[in-house]
Amino acid sequence: MKVFDRQAILASLDIEQAVLRLEEGFVAFSEGRVQVPPVQAFAFPHANGDCCIKSAYLEGSETFTVKVSTGFYDNPGKGLESNDGMMLVFCARTGAPLGLLADGGWLTCIRTALAGRIVARLLAPSRVEAIGMLGTGMQARLQLAHLMPVTACRELVVWGRDPARLEAYRGFARTLGFNVRVASKPQEVAQAANLIVCATPSREPLLQAAWIRPGTHVTALGADSVGKQELDPALVGMAQRIIVDSAAQCSQYGEVSHALEAGLIERAQLVELGAVLAGQAPGREHDDQVTLADLTGVAIQDAQIAQCAWASLQR
Amino acid sequence: MKVFDRQAILASLDIEQAVLRLEEGFVAFSEGRVQVPPVQAFAFPHANGDCCIKSAYLEGSETFTVKVSTGFYDNPGKGLESNDGMMLVFCARTGAPLGLLADGGWLTCIRTALAGRIVARLLAPSRVEAIGMLGTGMQARLQLAHLMPVTACRELVVWGRDPARLEAYRGFARTLGFNVRVASKPQEVAQAANLIVCATPSREPLLQAAWIRPGTHVTALGADSVGKQELDPALVGMAQRIIVDSAAQCSQYGEVSHALEAGLIERAQLVELGAVLAGQAPGREHDDQVTLADLTGVAIQDAQIAQCAWASLQR
Repeated sequence: MKVFDRQAILASLDIEQAVLRLEEGFVAFSEGRVQVPPVQAFAFPHANGDCCIKSAYLEGSETFTVKVSTGFYDNPGKGLESNDGMMLVFCARTGAPLGLLADGGWLTCIRTALAGRIVARLLAPSRVEAIGMLGTGMQARLQLAHLMPVTACRELVVWGRDPARLEAYRGFARTLGFNVRVASKPQEVAQAANLIVCATPSREPLLQAAWIRPGTHVTALGADSVGKQELDPALVGMAQRIIVDSAAQCSQYGEVSHALEAGLIERAQLVELGAVLAGQAPGREHDDQVTLADLTGVAIQDAQIAQCAWASLQR
Repeated sequence: MKVFDRQAILASLDIEQAVLRLEEGFVAFSEGRVQVPPVQAFAFPHANGDCCIKSAYLEGSETFTVKVSTGFYDNPGKGLESNDGMMLVFCARTGAPLGLLADGGWLTCIRTALAGRIVARLLAPSRVEAIGMLGTGMQARLQLAHLMPVTACRELVVWGRDPARLEAYRGFARTLGFNVRVASKPQEVAQAANLIVCATPSREPLLQAAWIRPGTHVTALGADSVGKQELDPALVGMAQRIIVDSAAQCSQYGEVSHALEAGLIERAQLVELGAVLAGQAPGREHDDQVTLADLTGVAIQDAQIAQCAWASLQR
């Protein structure tokens, strides 16, 4: 088994290939061609830590993947990063361990960002006037960078809680070539932008339905576990197209879970991303629709990006 | 993350420490102090293969463990071994990956053998006249070798389906110092031995209740997944003490599952090994009792032997 570090993975990953593999993965997932065993989770309350193990296999694929992710939130006080992670790639014909991708969680960040790119390509209005970003962390940066190939818009309105991080984000976005406006509250983002990405760890709604302009697309990434929420359930209720990565998982703890619970939407309104990619369901139908993508993150994304990274490393 | 191969692990593992760690693990498991997420399983029907991922954390322990085991049964035709496996050891205070034990499944074999040693110490009759072994594979060898520290008996009666493997086993046991008698059927083993170990992949009963002598202890290891069985359910029904590694798991697919289903025993008769080790329940009470240990294999064994192996490798 070969071990690859983050730097080697970063240097060799073919992003366009990764997008194709992720699209293929979403389609296969929605068609029931992915084996996804139950997530394994540990809690380490004495160390303020947790660990989860996600595994997936796209039937017929060359490889399958086991991902171990850890979050130990007292680590920064010890001079260590909070999050770590690795993916193990195995041969699906012999079971042989092929590669240990010691990516430190980086591949998970990338596959999440690329899912944002994929839904933006399918759902963004034809003319994006400004990109709105809630959040200033690593994922907010990756989302912005990976939106660039799918929209010509270089206007950005960004909001975040921490002024210093907001200022740093402004510098980052300018370096990418964006005209940046810093918003003092989420409402300003909603009023200026018609392609909004929510990439915060919020546990309460940040965006209200009343603020959203007709024709806006919203991608929400933050509700990746129970208790997290970025959107007013009424905003979910007003969306004319609701695209989810996994209907089962989003119904459990995604943004749509709150709207389902409140009776503002019905389960039948949820359309899986894989179905849209396969042409089985429409994405955006016209430029006045409010569309929503609720992305909670699915293990098939890990399996697909790991296979792609491993293949790139072989070249 | 350091990678260690089978040879390095084999050379450094401290067996007596491993026994202590396993006993500690069984006790903690029965006291509910072990986090054991659901097993993850994959099927690869096109390649006649499977994979399972077992993880465990003994609360308060320095480390936690993720084990990946594969079985690809067409591998021998490709010049590869059928079974492979590895254990990943992580720090429970920071989440840092500490070691990849590329043991190829060897630690699983050892922890299974040591569980056999532990139950034999607790349950074997005071005078073992002969050890009976059903099976001639790797596990049957390890069981015999690891029984030696807990019994002075050097008489062995062994049975197996394959004459060539039986002959090889005879040679192996002689090398260990045993007087070996080869049995032509399981009944002969039962009639000669009062400490019997069943280590076969059988899917039908091999040992009948009527053959068992008073005072015999039987350890059954083979029923480690649905469909496997080595004992006549009536033999389970006649046992006066039934010790299981996990009441939940053994009730699901261990030897006791068949007897429970047939109404020959009640769930309340199952006593976990951890409870006996903790002094919460008796083991063998007198020399005329027939005792049974049903060992299906639990993930805490993996976590404990992995921690022990990793600690040995640090010295």
